[in-house]
Amino acid sequence: MKIDGVPHRTIWPAEDGEGVMILDQTRFPHRFETVRLATVEDAARAIKTMQVRGAPLIGATAAYGLALALRVDASDAALERAAERLRATRPTAVNLAWALERCRARLAATPPEVRAATAWEEAAAICEEDVAICSAIGDHGLPLIREAHARNPDRPVRVLTHCNAGWLATVDWGTATAPIYKAHDAGIPVEVWVDETRPRNQGAFLTAWELGRHGVPHHVITDNAGGHLMQRGLVDLVITGTDRTTATGDVCNKIGTYLKALAAKDNGVPFFVALPSPTIDFGVEDGREIPIEEREATEVTHIAGRAPSGEVVEVALTPPDSPAANPAFDVTPARLVTSLITERGVCPATREGIAGLFPERAKAA
Amino acid sequence: MKIDGVPHRTIWPAEDGEGVMILDQTRFPHRFETVRLATVEDAARAIKTMQVRGAPLIGATAAYGLALALRVDASDAALERAAERLRATRPTAVNLAWALERCRARLAATPPEVRAATAWEEAAAICEEDVAICSAIGDHGLPLIREAHARNPDRPVRVLTHCNAGWLATVDWGTATAPIYKAHDAGIPVEVWVDETRPRNQGAFLTAWELGRHGVPHHVITDNAGGHLMQRGLVDLVITGTDRTTATGDVCNKIGTYLKALAAKDNGVPFFVALPSPTIDFGVEDGREIPIEEREATEVTHIAGRAPSGEVVEVALTPPDSPAANPAFDVTPARLVTSLITERGVCPATREGIAGLFPERAKAA
Repeated sequence: MKIDGVPHRTIWPAEDGEGVMILDQTRFPHRFETVRLATVEDAARAIKTMQVRGAPLIGATAAYGLALALRVDASDAALERAAERLRATRPTAVNLAWALERCRARLAATPPEVRAATAWEEAAAICEEDVAICSAIGDHGLPLIREAHARNPDRPVRVLTHCNAGWLATVDWGTATAPIYKAHDAGIPVEVWVDETRPRNQGAFLTAWELGRHGVPHHVITDNAGGHLMQRGLVDLVITGTDRTTATGDVCNKIGTYLKALAAKDNGVPFFVALPSPTIDFGVEDGREIPIEEREATEVTHIAGRAPSGEVVEVALTPPDSPAANPAFDVTPARLVTSLITERGVCPATREGIAGLFPERAKAA
Repeated sequence: MKIDGVPHRTIWPAEDGEGVMILDQTRFPHRFETVRLATVEDAARAIKTMQVRGAPLIGATAAYGLALALRVDASDAALERAAERLRATRPTAVNLAWALERCRARLAATPPEVRAATAWEEAAAICEEDVAICSAIGDHGLPLIREAHARNPDRPVRVLTHCNAGWLATVDWGTATAPIYKAHDAGIPVEVWVDETRPRNQGAFLTAWELGRHGVPHHVITDNAGGHLMQRGLVDLVITGTDRTTATGDVCNKIGTYLKALAAKDNGVPFFVALPSPTIDFGVEDGREIPIEEREATEVTHIAGRAPSGEVVEVALTPPDSPAANPAFDVTPARLVTSLITERGVCPATREGIAGLFPERAKAA
């Protein structure tokens, strides 16, 4: 998407062809800095310190990390070592493991003298595929926004979103944001309610930043506000992302998604979930079985922001002796989801709906 | 309630009888400081700068402010001037106006030579009445916690609360917290999930502080987490306060209350609202008619916390050019409220339930 008029991706080859460029996402929204990755170690550090985050972007960064390693040493041992190093950065990231395995399998079958070039091509292919998937999600979601605008042509369509399922989490377009960008670019007036998304504030830090840079009108709101806005008729539709979707359409996404889905149902507001199909887990039938990660209490008790000096400072928000609990995700039951928006089209959040779009995966499961 | 073992109120006469002591609530949870109010101007400043907040405590502080004024000058003109000065500090605070009018009416009918003493007595009476109301709310709410404990005697009762309807908002006990303190003091094991309550973080700043000081086990959680905790069976009941309750039982309370009520309903968790009956507005039938205050965007975009240096610093959380919206309250429809807990007992959140406990006010309306 654009940053102040200039098209950008979250990861791209450096102009000299010798390195890879990323945005340092740990600095958003307070600083905008690009970082050059010159070695596999640079790529590993970028993933580990969350300079890059979001499953698709982590996978793409790891693929480029392998390519950087193979330029130095293209032996079988070096390939295995680099893959292992990158995998260890975030051991539970499914997409990271998937991207590494895809590259490793192809490269192991490639003669060492062309491995570096092949690895670079494969990384670029992973990026292009991700862009194509997200763009297709946007194309399929666009009519939902267009129809909402047709119902009330005299005002902007008001879309609420939670967390960051934006282009910063992918290579371009994002998932939940793709229909929003497509609508904005098509001249449909859109205004976005951005849940700040405590505790890590990905809405306030990332979604507000990327919407603002692309020029999409938006307001940041507290996570508490969305229900009230729906009650007062100020939300036309909700679009969120998802980390994992069950075979029956239950959606595991950032903590707080469930509360917005309840409010949408209570107020007759359509609740859409945008997802690339690889995040559908055909092995899980019931979202209640999904274990929920409990993260560090300090994410709740502390927050970083810009001090009046311009410096980024982490401050404590709670009494020093008050413990905090920090479940990171929740499960929105399929009954609260109006439709899923995938790269193959829009379907009901049901076993039949999902199997209808992805019959080959549903059958294999 | 207790602060580290020592019984406290939020406002009390100084030992020398010459002034009034308060806690500086603008410093919580980072500093604990008492402030001496020696003049009406001190009292006005304490209300205006929110060193005291919460409707009952503001009323009590204003009453003592009048008494301090009359010690200097007990004339009719001085009485009117002081009442006007105090009323202007927070012109929309209903309880402030009520307390001032109550004192003014009594004092106007009192000879100037005993006015100062009478004003002091009246302020003390207002405090005692507030303590009695809150204590009665606690007594009526206690059985609800006791019953929850009887159902699961082997573990603590887990209560979720939102915002601060605690003793810091009143003279003692609080409203939503009164049943919790009564249960804790009666030896019933209680654990509280404290919603941080963005944007002003009254849960993290005030409720966590007061529960911790009294020794009640609790965890601070983000406002996003409560629904998930209810889904996983980790909440036995919810108790919140209310700013205003309609004749039919709709509840207008801090933004985000509605989302928790929806989640409670969806998971079969009882949702109780504790209130002193003066906050029932028999003139309003439908909560949807209540205008909702839109507060400063900076409450969303900025937050104050303790920097590592110990200094309290306000930091910015959003991109500088992202606007924010900040509705301060929402309305929870009566259909989501299990019962109201009042100083006269527990009743359904219905016209009949409320009229049954307060027939004289329902009839007058």
